[in-house]
Amino acid sequence: MQNFENFLLNHLPASKSIHPTYEEAVQKMLIAGGKRFRPALLLGVVNAYNPLMIGGAYHAAYAIELLHTYSLIHDDLPAMDNSPLRRGEPTLHVLFDEVTAILAGDALNTYAFEVLSNAPFSDFTRVELIRELATNGGLNGMVLGQAIDCYFENRVLSIDDVKILHTNKTAKLIAASLKMGAIIVGEEKLAETLYDFGIKLGLLFQIQDDILDVTQSSQEAGKLTNNDENKNSFVTILGLDEAFLEAESLANTLLKEIDGFDEKLKSELSKLLVHYINRHKN
Amino acid sequence: MQNFENFLLNHLPASKSIHPTYEEAVQKMLIAGGKRFRPALLLGVVNAYNPLMIGGAYHAAYAIELLHTYSLIHDDLPAMDNSPLRRGEPTLHVLFDEVTAILAGDALNTYAFEVLSNAPFSDFTRVELIRELATNGGLNGMVLGQAIDCYFENRVLSIDDVKILHTNKTAKLIAASLKMGAIIVGEEKLAETLYDFGIKLGLLFQIQDDILDVTQSSQEAGKLTNNDENKNSFVTILGLDEAFLEAESLANTLLKEIDGFDEKLKSELSKLLVHYINRHKN
Repeated sequence: MQNFENFLLNHLPASKSIHPTYEEAVQKMLIAGGKRFRPALLLGVVNAYNPLMIGGAYHAAYAIELLHTYSLIHDDLPAMDNSPLRRGEPTLHVLFDEVTAILAGDALNTYAFEVLSNAPFSDFTRVELIRELATNGGLNGMVLGQAIDCYFENRVLSIDDVKILHTNKTAKLIAASLKMGAIIVGEEKLAETLYDFGIKLGLLFQIQDDILDVTQSSQEAGKLTNNDENKNSFVTILGLDEAFLEAESLANTLLKEIDGFDEKLKSELSKLLVHYINRHKN
Repeated sequence: MQNFENFLLNHLPASKSIHPTYEEAVQKMLIAGGKRFRPALLLGVVNAYNPLMIGGAYHAAYAIELLHTYSLIHDDLPAMDNSPLRRGEPTLHVLFDEVTAILAGDALNTYAFEVLSNAPFSDFTRVELIRELATNGGLNGMVLGQAIDCYFENRVLSIDDVKILHTNKTAKLIAASLKMGAIIVGEEKLAETLYDFGIKLGLLFQIQDDILDVTQSSQEAGKLTNNDENKNSFVTILGLDEAFLEAESLANTLLKEIDGFDEKLKSELSKLLVHYINRHKN
């Protein structure tokens, strides 16, 4: 992923103006790092089916990371999670102010679509990618999930509703990342298969995140942890033991599905999942 | 514009979920009305050159209105203008809460691009429209303008910098509205001409708005007025008399440019500008 990291650093949103800190603010959380899990998923699929397209695919992976990063900035706002720390750095509303954090998020949201509109693909592919990112990252995807999460804070949801919450908040963008990889390499049938796989992978990802929230310190995580007490996390609803079991059950389902994938896709996915798990342990 | 209004009401962002107020929140400010000035500009251009395309053009006009509406919702937030009233209705953070207002804005921002990705045009046109809206409505357009506006509150800018502020905050989206109309009807050269015209029209629009802020009551305007004291408005920087002169000078330039337009475009533009001015007087 070093090449993607370099791509990102060479394509940071630029904005020279009379505003002394706007450009720094829109770049800050992108530079701060993060696991780049969603870009890795997209790039893994492209690498498996058409490694020659990887250069173009960076643009799409970057667009997903832009959307994901804006959502973190807004989730951390005082009105929402009020988090002081993200990716090991002070959050934007702490470093600057709320206005800057809201607007930097807004700018990155829209910029994701600007990047896709200029990505080196056919117009057909550009439109498919834009539709996929907007559908999963917006009104009836990630934003809805965050709205449900915030609304039901301090109110207990059923486990089925917790799954609805996290399917929207986390899993749809992860599923879209895999699907967008398949769109880029023109594998239409694979796109749907990977989307369904990605929803389950996203839920597993979220359960792990919920588990780490209670087992990891803020310093280890680079963000505020032990912060989910009043949230509908898998751990608060199921308890730690049941959450581990749910994760194991999902992991087994995913392993079976991976068995049906092409060898080259299997190889890419296993590499990046191992990489991701290692990052989480650090 | 009644047909567009009906189109909008028939295409409101739908979101059925366990969240009891999310759908209402994302629809509220769209239903509340507004002048629909940006949609009218786009539709006026399409009507002038290819009235048969007007049905498709509603989708693009709607996308612009979605982006504009999200920006109003975020501008009204407590951290920014802290406005209690918009389009004659309580603002979303008053009616619901800050979280809902932030997320409804986020959802509408992304939804604008979802709408364009599904609009009944060729993929080529879709991509052009998406690029135009994202470029003018985001990082180096509307969002930058709002960031400059907020940052320099209580600090006096030069008149040149005030123009930079409002070119970004207001004029670029107005210019993009005209240009997107030209893109839809395939008039590439006209697109650039109309963009330049739109920047000036947007500045005139802003000067009028600044003048009305000090001469109109909140009830007349349907939003909080007399609210620009610490802002870099054309009136606070130039004074009311100079602002009137600046508006007149811009209006004269625009009238000269309109002289060079095709008869059908002249007719459309003059109709909608008269309509717009009347709305402002009410």
